[in-house]
Amino acid sequence: MKPGIEKMNKIRVGIVGATGYTALESIRLLLQHPQAKVVAATSRKDAGKPLSEVHPSLSGRLDVQVTELNIKQLCSDCDVVFCCLPHGASAKTVKELIEGGTRVIDFSADFRLSNVETYEQWYGVEHPLPESIGSVVYVMPEFFAEEIRGADVVANPGCYPTSAILPLAPLIESSMIDPTDIIIDSKSGVSGAGRSAKVATLYCETNESIAAYAVGSHRHQPEIDDLVHRIGGREIQSLFTPHLTPMDRGILSTIYVRSEHDATEILNRWRDRYADSTFVQTVDHLPATKHVAGTNYVQMTARNAGSRRVLVTAIDNLAKGASGAAVQNLNVMFGLPENAGLI
Amino acid sequence: MKPGIEKMNKIRVGIVGATGYTALESIRLLLQHPQAKVVAATSRKDAGKPLSEVHPSLSGRLDVQVTELNIKQLCSDCDVVFCCLPHGASAKTVKELIEGGTRVIDFSADFRLSNVETYEQWYGVEHPLPESIGSVVYVMPEFFAEEIRGADVVANPGCYPTSAILPLAPLIESSMIDPTDIIIDSKSGVSGAGRSAKVATLYCETNESIAAYAVGSHRHQPEIDDLVHRIGGREIQSLFTPHLTPMDRGILSTIYVRSEHDATEILNRWRDRYADSTFVQTVDHLPATKHVAGTNYVQMTARNAGSRRVLVTAIDNLAKGASGAAVQNLNVMFGLPENAGLI
Amino acid sequence: MKPGIEKMNKIRVGIVGATGYTALESIRLLLQHPQAKVVAATSRKDAGKPLSEVHPSLSGRLDVQVTELNIKQLCSDCDVVFCCLPHGASAKTVKELIEGGTRVIDFSADFRLSNVETYEQWYGVEHPLPESIGSVVYVMPEFFAEEIRGADVVANPGCYPTSAILPLAPLIESSMIDPTDIIIDSKSGVSGAGRSAKVATLYCETNESIAAYAVGSHRHQPEIDDLVHRIGGREIQSLFTPHLTPMDRGILSTIYVRSEHDATEILNRWRDRYADSTFVQTVDHLPATKHVAGTNYVQMTARNAGSRRVLVTAIDNLAKGASGAAVQNLNVMFGLPENAGLI
Amino acid sequence: MKPGIEKMNKIRVGIVGATGYTALESIRLLLQHPQAKVVAATSRKDAGKPLSEVHPSLSGRLDVQVTELNIKQLCSDCDVVFCCLPHGASAKTVKELIEGGTRVIDFSADFRLSNVETYEQWYGVEHPLPESIGSVVYVMPEFFAEEIRGADVVANPGCYPTSAILPLAPLIESSMIDPTDIIIDSKSGVSGAGRSAKVATLYCETNESIAAYAVGSHRHQPEIDDLVHRIGGREIQSLFTPHLTPMDRGILSTIYVRSEHDATEILNRWRDRYADSTFVQTVDHLPATKHVAGTNYVQMTARNAGSRRVLVTAIDNLAKGASGAAVQNLNVMFGLPENAGLI
Repeated sequence: MKPGIEKMNKIRVGIVGATGYTALESIRLLLQHPQAKVVAATSRKDAGKPLSEVHPSLSGRLDVQVTELNIKQLCSDCDVVFCCLPHGASAKTVKELIEGGTRVIDFSADFRLSNVETYEQWYGVEHPLPESIGSVVYVMPEFFAEEIRGADVVANPGCYPTSAILPLAPLIESSMIDPTDIIIDSKSGVSGAGRSAKVATLYCETNESIAAYAVGSHRHQPEIDDLVHRIGGREIQSLFTPHLTPMDRGILSTIYVRSEHDATEILNRWRDRYADSTFVQTVDHLPATKHVAGTNYVQMTARNAGSRRVLVTAIDNLAKGASGAAVQNLNVMFGLPENAGLI
Repeated sequence: MKPGIEKMNKIRVGIVGATGYTALESIRLLLQHPQAKVVAATSRKDAGKPLSEVHPSLSGRLDVQVTELNIKQLCSDCDVVFCCLPHGASAKTVKELIEGGTRVIDFSADFRLSNVETYEQWYGVEHPLPESIGSVVYVMPEFFAEEIRGADVVANPGCYPTSAILPLAPLIESSMIDPTDIIIDSKSGVSGAGRSAKVATLYCETNESIAAYAVGSHRHQPEIDDLVHRIGGREIQSLFTPHLTPMDRGILSTIYVRSEHDATEILNRWRDRYADSTFVQTVDHLPATKHVAGTNYVQMTARNAGSRRVLVTAIDNLAKGASGAAVQNLNVMFGLPENAGLI
Repeated sequence: MKPGIEKMNKIRVGIVGATGYTALESIRLLLQHPQAKVVAATSRKDAGKPLSEVHPSLSGRLDVQVTELNIKQLCSDCDVVFCCLPHGASAKTVKELIEGGTRVIDFSADFRLSNVETYEQWYGVEHPLPESIGSVVYVMPEFFAEEIRGADVVANPGCYPTSAILPLAPLIESSMIDPTDIIIDSKSGVSGAGRSAKVATLYCETNESIAAYAVGSHRHQPEIDDLVHRIGGREIQSLFTPHLTPMDRGILSTIYVRSEHDATEILNRWRDRYADSTFVQTVDHLPATKHVAGTNYVQMTARNAGSRRVLVTAIDNLAKGASGAAVQNLNVMFGLPENAGLI
Repeated sequence: MKPGIEKMNKIRVGIVGATGYTALESIRLLLQHPQAKVVAATSRKDAGKPLSEVHPSLSGRLDVQVTELNIKQLCSDCDVVFCCLPHGASAKTVKELIEGGTRVIDFSADFRLSNVETYEQWYGVEHPLPESIGSVVYVMPEFFAEEIRGADVVANPGCYPTSAILPLAPLIESSMIDPTDIIIDSKSGVSGAGRSAKVATLYCETNESIAAYAVGSHRHQPEIDDLVHRIGGREIQSLFTPHLTPMDRGILSTIYVRSEHDATEILNRWRDRYADSTFVQTVDHLPATKHVAGTNYVQMTARNAGSRRVLVTAIDNLAKGASGAAVQNLNVMFGLPENAGLI
């Protein structure tokens, strides 16, 4: 095989908002990808530096200079852009990139909800591009592979929603659980809080400690309800409590539902529904976040407890919860096997 | 003040099962106690060693030799014994110690449940001393101070139960929550698993990971239900899920209940019920386990979430969840202020 | 004992710069002190808040409001002030406090060095009060108890210096080691970096990682050399390398020296020199920082390795390395036993 | 490309001693390898279980059953065996495997030293196969690629030695440092201690703590001296102090040497010597173990400090320190690019 030719055929990926943890995780995964490569990285904060100065783990592994955001340049250099900007800032950049002719995977929440009112209520800001909502499909490759294949832009799912939607959606779809009595108790590693300087996520504040936050008011709650509704065909109303856990990565969601079906039937339903999904693993053991750390896999199981069932899922919030899902989406968008570069 | 006299008046404490973490935490707290001192320590495994070899943090701080268990000697040397043996092994030793004339605070589960059947069902062994059940009061000083005052033996509460009973009991007592719909999702530090060599609690197994265990089958569940019933006067049926969290110490319990009373009324109820309790802090913020680490304090708060209320409590599993509660019990038993040596 | 009278006699302590970790640790220790109490706390950043909002671990334990710095008020309310301001900012405040008639324990580096040039060379700023250098004794109670007793202001030692000076000074004093060949390889917990928001000390930057920093250029190096010289009577030139270690607290210093005396003679020298020092523990085992966490103790030992000796010391950087030493200094200043409130 | 054919051509790897962390890391890396695959796994302790039960992170990713060690079967099924047995137990198995016709990469120390006396002195046991010493080349692909290419068995380097030999060997080779004055202060994550149940490596013993161990007596010291001698052509005598650090993975070595060449000359020497080595990165920043976690890369730099130079290297002890090096050796043995599957 001639390396030159191989390289010419690789999908060229640009990273917008290259300073943060999901950007770094995307780059880490793409370095292992046989058919894609990172060719550009932008960041207002770090423009002018080598990418390996922003992320020292890339030293000698990727020779890319961080630049200011330049839509025209990106559209010319890239086949697809991973847009890792925060919500509110992301939508307009995404629009410009698409109009410029490149495809986009958007990591923000700007296109995840199916109506503007819900967005504005939970995010407390006007939607920057309300007319676009609905034109972008919020996508998990496990459910919307067809839509992704032809899409110019996909809204990458949120981390907590991924850990909750994958177990819940098939059970709502097949009417196996009560849609009105769902409690999601989630525990996330600290990387979910991002890489900006805040006292609350200093080492000495979060180490050796666990705490709940945003009880009943976290923005991922409407995202969970919305997508389970769209997939399962029935409205649900969940109660979602996130917790900050002293670890870098991982989300464990412990989900309490009511069901007349026992745990075995739930496991069978999942095995059936996800028979063709590489990354969804229905397991018998109680999963730990360590079991999926650094991978795009989900492990999930169920247990009986009186009239309730306890569903437990583990993902890596940076991988399957963000950058791994993005690479998986990229694979589907470009007609590759969904697990290319992700095994 | 003459030191000699002062020393003579100190309560003499013996530690049985001195190798483990609750033993060490008890000793740590008693070193700070103005009116008590550790005079003896026994351990089958470590007999013959200086205590500071078993626990290097005691070097130069406590000059006690670990011995084999000798009931007669202990009863002669000690005013009270902290019995830190595992369940099943503890009951008989406790009995012998009382018959020998010393008082005992028992850390095991052997005397915590109010009937033998429940014990044998959940612990899977015959109760070693079934006739004694009922003669020992399971005690939390917040509820049974009178009984403790005159008791020869008190059954120290379990760690998870402490974090759940304190918020729940007053609400059951005053009929403010539905006793049939209670979900307790608890997250504990690793010290709760003890100090014996097991692969499952090696550093590299539990670090950077969170997992649920014993879903619907943990032995602290009947303990919670039993004591809330005894205090609140109504039967409850909780669903309890413990999680192993990557930190040394701390339990955070996130408790989901149904109530027609809003969070403010719950906070008021607690403030009223615990007005005289030094260690129970009803707070407005969402507590983190770090806020109570190393102390005997409980922090608890409540939040509204639709028809549910989310109660969140934080304790140190080794302190308020075990050794701190033991010292608090010791204080009440010997007529001292409940917070002596614990502030 | 009448509580009113007892309270009147307690030493009244004010905390200037109350937001940080050394302030919190000081308060934590003073809460356990039988003869001192915190009566005031100032912070530019947090003025107007209850102290328990700044440090939620104080909820229900200390009812003090944070105020702006008011020298006159502090001098009227306090017998002694713990000044926890950063270097450069501290000297002037210390001067005003002393002129106002209160005593001060200064946590900054402003008065630690014995000449202005060294200060300005290593700190890169003009000394705010050059004439004062020399009038303030830099003090470790193990060496300068006499000076502390009568002092109005004491310069509390730095964390790394404490871990290095305690083992080195007696060996220089008795000419047991080569003063020109000393390597100090120190590993510190993250709390040493303070509580201000910086990317470098975010949880996900420092967790699961160890790194050297400021190799050959850390400001504690001249402090070590200066004080060992003053105590031991001979100039030394050490090479000091600090490391950031993924833990909240603790400093382990591994010190490489050349000596013709074997490890046993070194241990004997220390045992002799520190016979009256409560907190310096010469031990046979290799100490771990966990063995001294939360305490004012130092554990130190020595090992043979060819013509070199390896000295290993463990302290808690927040306790013996800062706030514990401050309370110990307070005890000596006010004529109490050096271990009052610290056992 | 036809997947069937591709699979037939893959190098078939067997794992002996499949329970531990280096086994798991080897499997993790081989799962990403385009031209190798794991086909067998043996373990006395876990024979009869699916490999994914022993390592839950492999669920759904590798369908291999753990068996008892069967030399004949392994030799028939595998092109190469990773032998992850402990020292003492490994040598005989390695010999039988080679005689059976398969190639072996040995993770133990049994073949690492160049003479039997040193082995027996430091390991305290008779060498199980003294006649074989010398017939097996101890190999780091950075130095002995030629020998590896034709070898039937390679002795995979130790973790600490890798972090010390890579910076030291070229400097000894070119006489840039004093061979008699070398101090290696290394800090390792806990996975280096293995996966067997021991109190000393329980989470609560090692978390939030750092400690030195085996000062002047660790078995990797003669391995460092021996290999630097063999590569550099001059005898050295290092002083090596390992430390247990609260993290899963990583070794940071801070190495103190004397040199008349400044840090820049050292960096240049390394850049020159390792110009063709994919994984050795000479960097300007001070490396952190996190920068290389999960990768086969080494980052190293140098700093001036008087007449000394401080060399700092970071590796992942499980990857470049063990399993990554093994895959790199496998690549060289089988004529693949040294970085196949490792980027």
